[in-house]
Amino acid sequence: MIILFGVFIRYDEESDSHWIETRKKNNISTDLENDFYYRYPSFQDVHVMIFVGFGFLMTFLKRYSFGSVGFNFLIAAFGIQWALLMQGWFHSFDKEDLKIKIGVENLINADFCVAGCLIAYGACLGKVSPVQLMVLTLFGVTLYAVEEYIILYVLHVRDAGGSMVIHTFGAYYGLTISWVLYRPFLSQSNHLQRSVYHSDVFAMIGTLFLWMFWPSFNSAIADHGDGQHRAAINTYLSLAASVLTTFALSSLSKKYGKLDMVHIQNATLAGGVAMGTASEFMITPYGSLIVGFCSGIVSTLGYVFLTPLMEKTLKIQDTCGVHNLHAMPGVIGGIVGAVTAACASESVYGHEGLINMFGFEGKVNRTASVQGGYQAAGIFVAIAFGLVGGALVGGILKLPIWGDPTDSNCFDDDIYWEVPEEEDENIPAFGHQNMHHVERTPDAHHRSHV
Amino acid sequence: MIILFGVFIRYDEESDSHWIETRKKNNISTDLENDFYYRYPSFQDVHVMIFVGFGFLMTFLKRYSFGSVGFNFLIAAFGIQWALLMQGWFHSFDKEDLKIKIGVENLINADFCVAGCLIAYGACLGKVSPVQLMVLTLFGVTLYAVEEYIILYVLHVRDAGGSMVIHTFGAYYGLTISWVLYRPFLSQSNHLQRSVYHSDVFAMIGTLFLWMFWPSFNSAIADHGDGQHRAAINTYLSLAASVLTTFALSSLSKKYGKLDMVHIQNATLAGGVAMGTASEFMITPYGSLIVGFCSGIVSTLGYVFLTPLMEKTLKIQDTCGVHNLHAMPGVIGGIVGAVTAACASESVYGHEGLINMFGFEGKVNRTASVQGGYQAAGIFVAIAFGLVGGALVGGILKLPIWGDPTDSNCFDDDIYWEVPEEEDENIPAFGHQNMHHVERTPDAHHRSHV
Amino acid sequence: MIILFGVFIRYDEESDSHWIETRKKNNISTDLENDFYYRYPSFQDVHVMIFVGFGFLMTFLKRYSFGSVGFNFLIAAFGIQWALLMQGWFHSFDKEDLKIKIGVENLINADFCVAGCLIAYGACLGKVSPVQLMVLTLFGVTLYAVEEYIILYVLHVRDAGGSMVIHTFGAYYGLTISWVLYRPFLSQSNHLQRSVYHSDVFAMIGTLFLWMFWPSFNSAIADHGDGQHRAAINTYLSLAASVLTTFALSSLSKKYGKLDMVHIQNATLAGGVAMGTASEFMITPYGSLIVGFCSGIVSTLGYVFLTPLMEKTLKIQDTCGVHNLHAMPGVIGGIVGAVTAACASESVYGHEGLINMFGFEGKVNRTASVQGGYQAAGIFVAIAFGLVGGALVGGILKLPIWGDPTDSNCFDDDIYWEVPEEEDENIPAFGHQNMHHVERTPDAHHRSHV
Repeated sequence: MIILFGVFIRYDEESDSHWIETRKKNNISTDLENDFYYRYPSFQDVHVMIFVGFGFLMTFLKRYSFGSVGFNFLIAAFGIQWALLMQGWFHSFDKEDLKIKIGVENLINADFCVAGCLIAYGACLGKVSPVQLMVLTLFGVTLYAVEEYIILYVLHVRDAGGSMVIHTFGAYYGLTISWVLYRPFLSQSNHLQRSVYHSDVFAMIGTLFLWMFWPSFNSAIADHGDGQHRAAINTYLSLAASVLTTFALSSLSKKYGKLDMVHIQNATLAGGVAMGTASEFMITPYGSLIVGFCSGIVSTLGYVFLTPLMEKTLKIQDTCGVHNLHAMPGVIGGIVGAVTAACASESVYGHEGLINMFGFEGKVNRTASVQGGYQAAGIFVAIAFGLVGGALVGGILKLPIWGDPTDSNCFDDDIYWEVPEEEDENIPAFGHQNMHHVERTPDAHHRSHV
Repeated sequence: MIILFGVFIRYDEESDSHWIETRKKNNISTDLENDFYYRYPSFQDVHVMIFVGFGFLMTFLKRYSFGSVGFNFLIAAFGIQWALLMQGWFHSFDKEDLKIKIGVENLINADFCVAGCLIAYGACLGKVSPVQLMVLTLFGVTLYAVEEYIILYVLHVRDAGGSMVIHTFGAYYGLTISWVLYRPFLSQSNHLQRSVYHSDVFAMIGTLFLWMFWPSFNSAIADHGDGQHRAAINTYLSLAASVLTTFALSSLSKKYGKLDMVHIQNATLAGGVAMGTASEFMITPYGSLIVGFCSGIVSTLGYVFLTPLMEKTLKIQDTCGVHNLHAMPGVIGGIVGAVTAACASESVYGHEGLINMFGFEGKVNRTASVQGGYQAAGIFVAIAFGLVGGALVGGILKLPIWGDPTDSNCFDDDIYWEVPEEEDENIPAFGHQNMHHVERTPDAHHRSHV
Repeated sequence: MIILFGVFIRYDEESDSHWIETRKKNNISTDLENDFYYRYPSFQDVHVMIFVGFGFLMTFLKRYSFGSVGFNFLIAAFGIQWALLMQGWFHSFDKEDLKIKIGVENLINADFCVAGCLIAYGACLGKVSPVQLMVLTLFGVTLYAVEEYIILYVLHVRDAGGSMVIHTFGAYYGLTISWVLYRPFLSQSNHLQRSVYHSDVFAMIGTLFLWMFWPSFNSAIADHGDGQHRAAINTYLSLAASVLTTFALSSLSKKYGKLDMVHIQNATLAGGVAMGTASEFMITPYGSLIVGFCSGIVSTLGYVFLTPLMEKTLKIQDTCGVHNLHAMPGVIGGIVGAVTAACASESVYGHEGLINMFGFEGKVNRTASVQGGYQAAGIFVAIAFGLVGGALVGGILKLPIWGDPTDSNCFDDDIYWEVPEEEDENIPAFGHQNMHHVERTPDAHHRSHV
């Protein structure tokens, strides 16, 4: 990795110390025009989503919090390095000196790329070894970079928040792997495949940080100015709408109208996923609400009906329900984006706004409805990469060399982590003297050695 | 909601794709002049305060963490949508085309508006149903929008961080509702109205995110440039001072000098509340320290003496002690703001600075001391709206149709949530084999079925 | 404190309401040129690191979470006030009117200064009283301000992320204090000096927020424009590299290849510490990876071999292992900075870039290799201040007047905090009726009174 970085990666002109000369040459009046000041706050928000958001979202299992947060940390840190290289070769390669020039936008893109792999991890959570995760990430990042290149640069599709590129691809990639690695006797680990009270609260940390910063996710690499501004507003509205539908449907789906934490932790985020493609378009505020409303319904119903069905009939074991949170809302997002793009008109966007948004005239010469068709094509490219890539990588991961857990050991931190013994957690902490007293109580002693 | 949005809400000119033309027309040299880049980082900080800060602050109860975080999430997501409409009609209504034009500042204001309702939730925590909370929020947001309009636009009072508009109003609104909904037999739920070790740690997540981002809260909608800069510094200092007085007084108030987590979780924030109005004024750094110092004292003493007294004599059951954290420091903040405004002079602010700060000459023609009087009037408007509004909404919520919990069921997640059973959480996690062994132990078996 | 602030501290010209006039005078075209917009997002990230990052990182102990988060909160809030004064006298003192002028950069520097003391707290965690911590902070901040003045202003050393100034100093300061306060019978508290499952998850909150925001830490006070941009990229890469080496080495160091949470929580951050000095230099992306790679190795090996050895032979009890996380990577960072500075050339930095970076010509007239020598000297100044200051302050803290815990009471919240009783946490929450039933069960009754 270091060698590859040594050979290929350099600073771009905005992060190079020649910036002061570049600035003068291009007659830029202020350091603030450095892209750092446009994008760094959004980058940090995205960074929090990747490491805290995804990491804690998956801590809901009672005995897999170390694995959720820890392996999420590992594969994200590995993935961003590999993504800088892979994406660099495809997107930021300078043909003159054969170097990749990186700046803050590359860091955001690397985080995005890793998000796809973390979604795939969600489908396999608790059933794979860290080595398998590294392989999953290695190939996932590579596939992502190719898929992204085709969708964004060959088809000239707009997908600022990655409904297709990130969510649809990542979810189908993970689901296919999970399908290949189907474990018929997973029920032996059933007693660990559920939450406890505090693990659900930890998962809410993940949910909330994802939810709050999703407007930054969808606006991070949108166009400067109104593009970023509008993407943030649309995503904010869509997310708010899906919270309401999720609570309503969750309550309706259970007896006594009780709410289910699984829905609240996940389906509330569907609005962000579904707004990924269209966020920078002029979808209008009420359009955003409708998108959030529908995706919240689809996602919650998915958790209620589809996940059990998929496990029974399709043999897909989807630990985190990524099909409901990422695959379906991602496809919805792609469709919404295609429709919105197809309806784009000069009267809504303004003459220059329209050119600006879709890059018409400059790079490509298309009408809005043709653009809509290309957008729709992007969805299929993403799904295809997910399915084919997942099948291949799943095949590799099925080899018996990766040290994966047995069916009865899944969802258990104890096989990959030094887990602290908890013998005396139950004993009231009345201070030292009592503790000693307690430890001599036969009953407590017994408990600590079972 | 979607229909109302469809009829009324549009992008403002900074988030509309015509921005590129607006920019040229107004001769704006850079996209950075888009308000997005002035306010978005502050908006995200405020967003974290609303969803993580308020949500986790209330998780201190041993069996109400789902309700605290979850219902906070629900009513905030509902409230921001409603607030965009209500505040829009009052503040951002474009009379030409009868539309509300929204941008990032509206999103911040919607978050602020919701904060008022979340404060009210704090007073009622654990004693109301989610449907009651929706009603509380629906009316709360409406009242807030009217009250804010009167204070900020009719009286031309400055209140950037909302000491009066948000905190004083929200607290008295919630306290009055709690008074109307007085539960004489609440002691039946006493065993649940306390914390456990880890729930107190979760609550510290809320406290810290509120504390850290409060400078953003008070500076989010302050004037560009020095206004935002000064608001952040003043709030930072005031908060730091109230931490010190809280620790000191908490230690003094208990035998053996032990510290009380309730004080640390709450009274440390009083400095931010009390600096809400005056944060953008030239209150000087030592003035900020004095404000933080005093509000920390008042708030901590409130928890020690006033809350038990209020419950006994006034029949107000204030679960989170919002009277100590929001009501009293909010009023202090209003008074400090009035005094500071009354003392404003050209020698301190500079000629243009003074005009700029209070909007003198442009909209209103006042001297500083008259402005001080209006500021003081704002406090009474906020209190009046809180008391009258709370009494009305409390009356509505007293109707026996909302599915609220019985006195013996309060502070318990189990009635509104699917709570995971914890029968074997106590068993040491030595891996699968041991688990099974344990489950056969009669003693453990007994424990899991009590 | 208030009096000192009253006498000395004023707003600087960017946070003063005369800004509007300053702006016109200096012909500044936009409010965005106010330093607030350059640095405030980074400031907030640093703020999160100080209060949530350091606070939660130390919650790993099973019964010291209140003390970790709470005392961290106390001394940080106290320290930033004292630091504004001490650093102000040395760095921002206006000799004309004998005032200290503060702005957002001062707030960041105060947070940095406090970071040094929090590192020292890490070495003493659980073994000192809050009063001792206040004394430790009072002197720590004072020493820091002098040391920083010597290194940055007398020697003209560059240290944007404080590898030397913050980490090396803070770690040796704390270690020396811990050495002076050596407790021979600390093993009596052994049963509390370990983690439980959920306390390790809480600690990961701290780890992740430190890890994610470290690029902001190292870039917060770097030069506007390319300096901040490059510092963020370098730190991001270095951190990513040290995650990989930490996971690899942690797995190798344990039987069965299990991972150790202590390593993951700490050594993953070593890359940020080691990149503190060189982050704004042109160290190149692969250089950053190498630094992260090496510091991750050194730090993990430190936890495996050095900490037990230091306790046995040197009588240094280092609760959090700050020697591994801050001292060694800090020294590495200083050396890397010295080497990188010594190798700086016009061909890499550009003519103006080189002058800009090291302040050559303006303030000092040096060649790059001379600058490298001064950088190396900075390391020794930091270590010397740590050792001598720690010995002095340790001597003061050894006086028997500070109410420190006995050897058998260490790592226990119960002596300084009102800790909630947990008698019925173990009982399944099946609702109120069952609870009462349970409380009458003799066995449960017994458990709650042991």
